[in-house]
Amino acid sequence: MKKKAYLCPVICVLMVMNEYPSVLLERAVAQMSSLPGVGRKTALRYVLGLLRRSPEEVETFSSAMTRLKNEVHYCRYCHGLSDTDVCPICASHSRDKHLVCVVENVQDIMLIENTGQYNGLYHVLGGVIAPIENVGPKDLEIDSLVDRIAAEEIREVIMALPTTMEGDTTNFFIFRKLQPTGVRITQISRGIAVGGELEYTDEVTLGRSIVNRIEMKG
Amino acid sequence: MKKKAYLCPVICVLMVMNEYPSVLLERAVAQMSSLPGVGRKTALRYVLGLLRRSPEEVETFSSAMTRLKNEVHYCRYCHGLSDTDVCPICASHSRDKHLVCVVENVQDIMLIENTGQYNGLYHVLGGVIAPIENVGPKDLEIDSLVDRIAAEEIREVIMALPTTMEGDTTNFFIFRKLQPTGVRITQISRGIAVGGELEYTDEVTLGRSIVNRIEMKG
Repeated sequence: MKKKAYLCPVICVLMVMNEYPSVLLERAVAQMSSLPGVGRKTALRYVLGLLRRSPEEVETFSSAMTRLKNEVHYCRYCHGLSDTDVCPICASHSRDKHLVCVVENVQDIMLIENTGQYNGLYHVLGGVIAPIENVGPKDLEIDSLVDRIAAEEIREVIMALPTTMEGDTTNFFIFRKLQPTGVRITQISRGIAVGGELEYTDEVTLGRSIVNRIEMKG
Repeated sequence: MKKKAYLCPVICVLMVMNEYPSVLLERAVAQMSSLPGVGRKTALRYVLGLLRRSPEEVETFSSAMTRLKNEVHYCRYCHGLSDTDVCPICASHSRDKHLVCVVENVQDIMLIENTGQYNGLYHVLGGVIAPIENVGPKDLEIDSLVDRIAAEEIREVIMALPTTMEGDTTNFFIFRKLQPTGVRITQISRGIAVGGELEYTDEVTLGRSIVNRIEMKG
């Protein structure tokens, strides 16, 4: 009984949490807290941070979001984000047009670009096959990938999807679709992180890194 | 030398980090990462989260921020946020008009309101005296507080500023300013948190809680 009394303030706070002195503030916080992973407390901090700026600065903030949504293009070939109809990577003459790396999302392109280790093209699926979330092959850019392989001079397709059940399902689905074309299909290697200790690597990853071991060259 | 080689990919990533495929995306991320405590990676996640919505939803998001900035009022009396010229707390007939609680920021009002333990009025200073950051008494709503005490029927001023050097300086400054008016001046108590163990309380707080001990009533 005594323990419960200590919890009371916490419950009180949770009960009256969404009382704001202003409807405008409440709406702004509600919108801000709809961003992925943002709670109401963090949203309030962001909104009050915005409120400390000049009207012009807030206008710049808001219009950056609206303009991005209204004016950004999805590249006709790779479906990545772009300011133009064809993205800089697909339009570039210095990229290897024989290689296509298949990724789940637009941010994966940025991640791979940041490694500086890849010079080919990309293909964004826009997700992975997830029957539970009602995402089937038709919701993804899989047909357009098959069309690309048929139309362009692509020699190798590198699958760089996440190592989840959904990622593996999508990998296999695309593998079966592309097999008849005779194109070379690879997937990015899984193993111990560079600088990582065996001791802190999970068993599945360590197991895979042994199965997929590579020849050492002198 | 070998250790350094392991760090190389990290340095590489840091070097080419701000390469976005689209200027619009880059601008949106730059704006989003200007929010307090938001880095570029988190900003990208927020922006891509926004991008997945309909244009109308993004417009609602943006206009909530712009409207807040352009249309919100600061209460004429307490300087808290409000939709009208006088905030609901100052306009309410059920609040105790003899009590004023002095706080640093508008969010402090919400925090105290959420406790459900206070029924008086507020006064937002808009900061605390911080000579290092060039914030002097003239930058804060201290004169308007003194005017309020003179004009309104206020019997007690409760200081609820943060327990920092700046907070204590501001406390003392306001105390000296208000002393001649004869108004009762109190400050919120510092001590061990409700539900807290002595073992985990810092020495200064524990010391203060002994000095400021209160009589037990049967």
